[in-house]
Amino acid sequence: MDNAALLARRKKVLAPSYYHMFQDPIQIVRGEGAWLWDETGRRFLDCYNNVPSVGHCHPGVVSALSAQAGTLNTHTRYLHETIVTLAERLLAKLPNEIETAVFVCTGSEANDLAIQMARRFTGAQGVAVYDHAYHGNTALTLAASPSEYPVADRPDWLCVLEAPNLYRGSITNQDANAGQRYLEGAIRELDKLDARGQRLSCLLLDTSWDSNGPLLAPPDYVQGLCREVRARGGLIICDEVQAGYCRMGKHWWGFESYGIVPDIVTCGKPMGAGHPIAGVFLPRDIAKSMADRSLYFNTFGGNPVSAAVANAVLDVIENEGLLENVDRTGAYFLECLRSLQNRHSIVGAVQGKGFFYGIDLVTNRDSKSPLNRNDMARLGSMIVDEGVITGTSGSMGQILKLRPPLVFGITEVDTTVAAIDRAFTRFSEQTNAKR
Amino acid sequence: MDNAALLARRKKVLAPSYYHMFQDPIQIVRGEGAWLWDETGRRFLDCYNNVPSVGHCHPGVVSALSAQAGTLNTHTRYLHETIVTLAERLLAKLPNEIETAVFVCTGSEANDLAIQMARRFTGAQGVAVYDHAYHGNTALTLAASPSEYPVADRPDWLCVLEAPNLYRGSITNQDANAGQRYLEGAIRELDKLDARGQRLSCLLLDTSWDSNGPLLAPPDYVQGLCREVRARGGLIICDEVQAGYCRMGKHWWGFESYGIVPDIVTCGKPMGAGHPIAGVFLPRDIAKSMADRSLYFNTFGGNPVSAAVANAVLDVIENEGLLENVDRTGAYFLECLRSLQNRHSIVGAVQGKGFFYGIDLVTNRDSKSPLNRNDMARLGSMIVDEGVITGTSGSMGQILKLRPPLVFGITEVDTTVAAIDRAFTRFSEQTNAKR
Repeated sequence: MDNAALLARRKKVLAPSYYHMFQDPIQIVRGEGAWLWDETGRRFLDCYNNVPSVGHCHPGVVSALSAQAGTLNTHTRYLHETIVTLAERLLAKLPNEIETAVFVCTGSEANDLAIQMARRFTGAQGVAVYDHAYHGNTALTLAASPSEYPVADRPDWLCVLEAPNLYRGSITNQDANAGQRYLEGAIRELDKLDARGQRLSCLLLDTSWDSNGPLLAPPDYVQGLCREVRARGGLIICDEVQAGYCRMGKHWWGFESYGIVPDIVTCGKPMGAGHPIAGVFLPRDIAKSMADRSLYFNTFGGNPVSAAVANAVLDVIENEGLLENVDRTGAYFLECLRSLQNRHSIVGAVQGKGFFYGIDLVTNRDSKSPLNRNDMARLGSMIVDEGVITGTSGSMGQILKLRPPLVFGITEVDTTVAAIDRAFTRFSEQTNAKR
Repeated sequence: MDNAALLARRKKVLAPSYYHMFQDPIQIVRGEGAWLWDETGRRFLDCYNNVPSVGHCHPGVVSALSAQAGTLNTHTRYLHETIVTLAERLLAKLPNEIETAVFVCTGSEANDLAIQMARRFTGAQGVAVYDHAYHGNTALTLAASPSEYPVADRPDWLCVLEAPNLYRGSITNQDANAGQRYLEGAIRELDKLDARGQRLSCLLLDTSWDSNGPLLAPPDYVQGLCREVRARGGLIICDEVQAGYCRMGKHWWGFESYGIVPDIVTCGKPMGAGHPIAGVFLPRDIAKSMADRSLYFNTFGGNPVSAAVANAVLDVIENEGLLENVDRTGAYFLECLRSLQNRHSIVGAVQGKGFFYGIDLVTNRDSKSPLNRNDMARLGSMIVDEGVITGTSGSMGQILKLRPPLVFGITEVDTTVAAIDRAFTRFSEQTNAKR
């Protein structure tokens, strides 16, 4: 079906909150590995989607899904081995302190439940998050997502910390004590929460600071912040929807590179490579304090099909050495992006590591004046025209976001960088011509 | 793997909130149609699960799932025809006033979003629900589920109405004006909400009153309540997770039999026959008032695989005439249950219609003294021993819940009723022997 007709039908029946990427939306009809095809047969390299973590339509995942769906799909109130195996495998990848698992369907459900558990366990209501963070779309997680609504609507229990952006934040890497200075700022915000009469239940920490970046923070800042939160009676919830599952390279989870041990870990998107499964991982005593009040049941969460798919994703990551691939190919990716930075003055900064990068784009390197949203949209379309799908991020939408499936190889990196290179050149020529 | 070993492994790694049905949990390894098999090859007739709405592992659903999962699974920010077709098909089954769809993954997400939308649209916070209702497990929907936590913890914005239980409620079918009297009671509760300074945003209405029954309410009560809620500025949200998708027979949705038109309809469990897909259906203006503030995006919601599965479920229901089957077989089912009532004095009442029945069990028909939880558990196990899986419901857990997949036929009804008959007889003999 052609795009215009499909878009018209879509607008008629889907709610106005639905939106599409790119000025001219694309219709995607097939996927394989890191590649997507549109309805005309045109191929795009996918350098954006982290949900198909092991690549689009991985045969190992599809066959596990099909086999289990054809055999049984019930729920967790009957015994089934698959969910137990999944919990054992994931807990083995987590610190010893994290003892039990709850499976749900989405990252939103996972974060919602994690906050509920932290509140129940601590008896406090306060939640600390980062400016421009996004943690979900339920009423509670949306309230804990400052990126999604006006500042004036922030609830009293929300404590909003400045993201440790060393390129664009109030403290940059020009400051030798940047970590300490960001920590001081965080303490000031936590003190304000106290002053409002709100006790702290938890800090929601995405160690990739996805919607601000990604960012790499000073480890002394992250460690100091965790100590401070715990001193105030709060729990550390690491939201690993973005940073987990090998995304940042070297470690399975994002928090590991900061040498911290969270109280609760949540995960979502990459777990099922597109199948809706997510999880909350936590010590038994925290889980018990909530269970003592009401039993939690999630109809689809961890059902035999979801669990079989999640196990298949783990198999692929382990068997294909994808963590090692992210390390090796990610280092090369970063090198190529740094060389783009050398050649194009619109690149203000390249941030991130592993398979998660943000290119902060500027009209002027000295003033760091960000590209506006129209220009970002134009640039995104130019990169799509070059055959590569990317995204945007950042509080001003000024960041070109690169976050490919974990199966990206050297060839795919080269293709991506060459496409961005050509688009940057064309964009700069157009911009200069306008002047 | 044997049950004891699996249970031990499960207890070690799954959170304490996980629970299992039946005193001796069963392990289920295979499903087909209305049948389930345990690890020893023993077969059970499934007279409880509404999630596998078109039967366990329906080949039409499994093949649609496998085909789409092997072709593409992305998200709604690229165009794809499947979600548009699904929205068109479901909206065609809803009143004209309901114009647009939002797809999510679970009934909890659907109800959470529906309440958020009602609050945004009305500017009010109050939510009316029924005593012992269950609407989900997110922080917001859990707070709107009085079945899940102590009365003392009810938030100020929650208005709790008495369920219109004509057998066991404060007004019974002995009262010729029961509908009017329940309406008066509801108005008193709504007035109390007003008196607390809370304006009403919505009524969450499950027209099967699942966790209280199911119940059949006087239509004049339901219609009067809807008028009253609207007069106070509130919206009617019909939670059709239980009553929808042909469950009650005659109509596709539960609300239709009461001659009301909701403002928002939510649905979940049966839509994907086990695959996590759910939906919110609503007029454009209500959807727009939320979209104006923040764009809602649900990563997995309505993705190509979810949408393909949900379309396949619609195909099966339509092609196999399952609504007609629920009507025809449901009438026979009710007749058989009434005859059970004649033969067994522990049956206080048989409530429900279509493929959703509750047998309210009593120690004494005059006093209506309910069977206690231990006896209910013993009885449930006896029925499983007879080869049929049932559930329990009701505020005192005194209701034997029968809610089979829509593919149940006359033979399956006969098997179920015979098993329950034998279990009732055995139960009564044991009870009499103890006296």
